[in-house]
Amino acid sequence: MIFENVEIIDPEGTYTGTVEIERGRIARIIPKEGTSKYLLMPGFVDIHTHAHKGIDVMHASNKDLWRWAEANFEQGVTTFLPTTVSAPIEVLENLLASSGPLPPSVAGFHLEGPFINPTKKGAQNGQFIFPSAGKDLRRLLEYPVRIITAAPEIDGFEGLCARCCEKGIVLSIGHTSADYRTMQEAFQTGVRRITHFPNALTPLAHREIGATGAGLYLDFDIEMIVDGIHTSPEFVDLVYRIKGADHISLITDSIAAAGMHEGEYELGGLPVFVSGGKAVLADGTLAGSTLLFPQAVRNFVRFTGCSLPELAKVSSYNALKVLKDEGCTGKIREGYRANLVLLDREMNLLQTIFEGDRVYTSE
Amino acid sequence: MIFENVEIIDPEGTYTGTVEIERGRIARIIPKEGTSKYLLMPGFVDIHTHAHKGIDVMHASNKDLWRWAEANFEQGVTTFLPTTVSAPIEVLENLLASSGPLPPSVAGFHLEGPFINPTKKGAQNGQFIFPSAGKDLRRLLEYPVRIITAAPEIDGFEGLCARCCEKGIVLSIGHTSADYRTMQEAFQTGVRRITHFPNALTPLAHREIGATGAGLYLDFDIEMIVDGIHTSPEFVDLVYRIKGADHISLITDSIAAAGMHEGEYELGGLPVFVSGGKAVLADGTLAGSTLLFPQAVRNFVRFTGCSLPELAKVSSYNALKVLKDEGCTGKIREGYRANLVLLDREMNLLQTIFEGDRVYTSE
Repeated sequence: MIFENVEIIDPEGTYTGTVEIERGRIARIIPKEGTSKYLLMPGFVDIHTHAHKGIDVMHASNKDLWRWAEANFEQGVTTFLPTTVSAPIEVLENLLASSGPLPPSVAGFHLEGPFINPTKKGAQNGQFIFPSAGKDLRRLLEYPVRIITAAPEIDGFEGLCARCCEKGIVLSIGHTSADYRTMQEAFQTGVRRITHFPNALTPLAHREIGATGAGLYLDFDIEMIVDGIHTSPEFVDLVYRIKGADHISLITDSIAAAGMHEGEYELGGLPVFVSGGKAVLADGTLAGSTLLFPQAVRNFVRFTGCSLPELAKVSSYNALKVLKDEGCTGKIREGYRANLVLLDREMNLLQTIFEGDRVYTSE
Repeated sequence: MIFENVEIIDPEGTYTGTVEIERGRIARIIPKEGTSKYLLMPGFVDIHTHAHKGIDVMHASNKDLWRWAEANFEQGVTTFLPTTVSAPIEVLENLLASSGPLPPSVAGFHLEGPFINPTKKGAQNGQFIFPSAGKDLRRLLEYPVRIITAAPEIDGFEGLCARCCEKGIVLSIGHTSADYRTMQEAFQTGVRRITHFPNALTPLAHREIGATGAGLYLDFDIEMIVDGIHTSPEFVDLVYRIKGADHISLITDSIAAAGMHEGEYELGGLPVFVSGGKAVLADGTLAGSTLLFPQAVRNFVRFTGCSLPELAKVSSYNALKVLKDEGCTGKIREGYRANLVLLDREMNLLQTIFEGDRVYTSE
């Protein structure tokens, strides 16, 4: 496979060239003079997605996960983490145990809850939240769990930290009523990540900067739902200016309605109503998103005016770093795995390449 | 007068040297090798101060203003704006009319209100707030008013802008419930300043970044009460990192209790209770500060770790720029007016020089 005269967007820079792909890898890159109508970027990475096109991780069979992976190629997503919501431990355990051989683009699971703060549950089902991480947790960690979102104020948070550290699982702070000091302590313990910043966090106030302020002030990596609904364009741009592109990962936080018609759906056992692209519970609480990854990418560049290499960071490289997988993906370099997206200059997705195979083409 | 081997702190940089003063001006600067125990900085400038050591602008005779200027030399303040609070127009007019020949360190007045939003009155007396700037305003502008703090959502704000612009008066946004769009419109109209950021502003939220967010996001200059009470140290440092030292001016916002014993005082006709350095109304609302300028300077450097040239900006140069007086003060340059402070390295005030005269010495 060969991409002739494309603009190559790598986290470190951009230039025009021809990219040759052989045996699933980028075999050769030949830089050329001139400009191109096409952009070749590392494939998108979505490490927080609950569901897509009617398939929800909480009810997904192994076959569903493979269908989801296929459907995600249509969105340029070449790596993702199906993300669970709060549920009884045995439900989560059964789900992980029965997930079977995972599709190669599924890098594992993200558990969002149940060890979160019920007062900051957002659209999570309060009856399944456990504000205490006890021994029963251990069994969950035997499965390919890559990220756990938890609140630092829950009982047993330090034990959870230690256990995640042992297992190489990334702990991400979310759904928390933590104040600045609690966030600072968690940071000092080694936690470096915040989930869907700043949704379901304590707000920034000028006498107590809260978990939102901690996310801006301390060197946390953050993920953001850039749909123009969960956060305003100005907020996204302000965060980008403060933290820089190195510390932001785009996520969809998508629910089953993503890629589907509007109407009534479900999240963690709660009914969700989707209208005008906005998913809400009966009480109006935002309930995940219907965001598709290419739209998140277009929104981010529109809201921030970031450079294309920065866009490659927020859409791919930074998330792969979280997954400790940036050594062979996330860059356009000879020898790197050929997980790529081809876009036009309006950032419309034209093709998705996964391990050297063209797995999606727009027409 | 001569300062031998002092560290010279100019907004543009710092170096050791000897500074000779003649006829009220800096006559010669001779750079030298080595270090010094003493810092020579431009004199402090406080453009938002209601009162000091029992003297309150709202009741001050001309003699009181001169006593205030003397007392301010003990705090290193070589330029200040006595700042009124909301009051009937005729009260303000009488006050300005009877202020008499001003002491040379008083650069004019700052009117904080009465054209503000009653829902964001802070410690201002609600009965004297006029959420509409009408024709009666004009008379006020005939006096040496340098800054007017007003809310952009009041009736007649555009007329106020135009009139201030004509007269060379700086309009500063404060005590406002303005949302981001209103702030953006005010910015586009040419307003570039925010009063005691972010106190009495709409907070920063992630779907509506408010006046606080506008202050961070747009290129507003801001003043801050850095007493560790009105804003937390982390907030101050975060603002410093976002906006940089070029856009921040330290103010005291001090009330009559500043420099006095704790107890009961008064602000705009409301009783104020001072305890533990904190001034509050009966309902607990913060009511200005008892902050003294050298403490604001020490706090700012402690909270932010800023450089000494940056400290010269936030304590002097930036405020002089607001007063359009930075051409001959605010820097340590030959020919500049000799308004200076001598400090030890712990930022304790040792001497104040005003127009070449030693007007204060610490022992």
